[in-house]
Amino acid sequence: MQKPRVIVCPSPLLLKTLPIKESIVVVVDILRATTSMCVAFAHGATEIVPVETIEECLQYKSRGYIVAGERNGVKVVGFDMGNSPFSFMGEHIKGAKIAMTTTNGTKCIHASRNAAQIVVGAFVNMSSLIDYLKAQNRDVIVLAAGWKDKMNLEDTAFGGALAIALEPYFKPTEDATRIAMTLYEAMLKDKRFYLRNATQYEQIKGLDIVEDVKYCLKKDLHQVVPIYTEGRLVDILKQEA
Amino acid sequence: MQKPRVIVCPSPLLLKTLPIKESIVVVVDILRATTSMCVAFAHGATEIVPVETIEECLQYKSRGYIVAGERNGVKVVGFDMGNSPFSFMGEHIKGAKIAMTTTNGTKCIHASRNAAQIVVGAFVNMSSLIDYLKAQNRDVIVLAAGWKDKMNLEDTAFGGALAIALEPYFKPTEDATRIAMTLYEAMLKDKRFYLRNATQYEQIKGLDIVEDVKYCLKKDLHQVVPIYTEGRLVDILKQEA
Repeated sequence: MQKPRVIVCPSPLLLKTLPIKESIVVVVDILRATTSMCVAFAHGATEIVPVETIEECLQYKSRGYIVAGERNGVKVVGFDMGNSPFSFMGEHIKGAKIAMTTTNGTKCIHASRNAAQIVVGAFVNMSSLIDYLKAQNRDVIVLAAGWKDKMNLEDTAFGGALAIALEPYFKPTEDATRIAMTLYEAMLKDKRFYLRNATQYEQIKGLDIVEDVKYCLKKDLHQVVPIYTEGRLVDILKQEA
Repeated sequence: MQKPRVIVCPSPLLLKTLPIKESIVVVVDILRATTSMCVAFAHGATEIVPVETIEECLQYKSRGYIVAGERNGVKVVGFDMGNSPFSFMGEHIKGAKIAMTTTNGTKCIHASRNAAQIVVGAFVNMSSLIDYLKAQNRDVIVLAAGWKDKMNLEDTAFGGALAIALEPYFKPTEDATRIAMTLYEAMLKDKRFYLRNATQYEQIKGLDIVEDVKYCLKKDLHQVVPIYTEGRLVDILKQEA
């Protein structure tokens, strides 16, 4: 039997070069949108509505949603919280509905709307995601959200990590996928690779989110697989349980 | 004094995210367009007109141009030659004008038309290119032509090689640039990396161009720097001599 393919898409602008209709798209925005989404479900959120604009997001406030998100890495005025993963922990998250907008992550979910399925990936839910994808047995496109349509290190590296982990069951396809796998192998060999090289690092230091970055690079903290259905994300593992 | 920047652009679709107007764009299509352009100038071609369509290219035939190019790696019917570098050597090239169309390379030259300058790069003219760029002292964008808007290994790796070579004089900027540098370092450590991993390799074997590939990955065979001016490429080193 032919293995399904795993392809890393290094920027949302390149999504149109790939067969998304027949594929599961894994949206990845490690710093910090998709990490925080996983954290929210692990702490009892029932749904997350990814919203493109700040105005649309604010409208959810009157409907009882927690309103979260950032623009250029900074919390939006009038929002309940930004997108630090630490904001998505605690009692206020249990049973909550959340509306969320971010510079790159929510945009990518919308850009993937024609996919067979959209799920959310991050280092923090990597093992659960791998188990889920293996069980689906269809082509996977890992969409690295990047930064304003540019490639970034952490999302591409996660794509590479996922392709390496899936390689026994999937066929890594496209040069971009090999490049992402090579990047992740280089990062594994050199623990400080990320901090030395990320363009965002200057920005990260400026925003005082070093603890966020450390958290976002940790693997397998949460057993959740957020899936996009009927305009919102839910945790498929909880749906199936 | 602040160093100028060197940025690797991993696909023509990402060019719009970068400040091309103020930059020298180095167009790179290692297999085989930009390699062959360098070979042609080294063998005495006086100009190369990069043309987008096959029809436009054929019109140059009656005007005394050699007509060259491929679609999907195969020579076009009615053309004098394809884009193998070995076709651009020999007596027929001396003093010749060439019109050329390729799947990716010539398209990228046109996509870069708003740049401050457009030059052509390949492993075969790498040292001449480096000397030229150092002398200009302005921002450089290395445009990896890729394959039908997707990233590919050889063009991205060349971008990384160039950024590494320029690093003493330029500031490598953007995560994509770091990823390309990491890729080239991995390829240096593992000589068979390219052949094992290139998506194009199956296609390359099918097209029987293994000798072309070996030639295209050789460094510093030719002292030429093709530059785009008034709708055509000329060798800036010959112009200045």
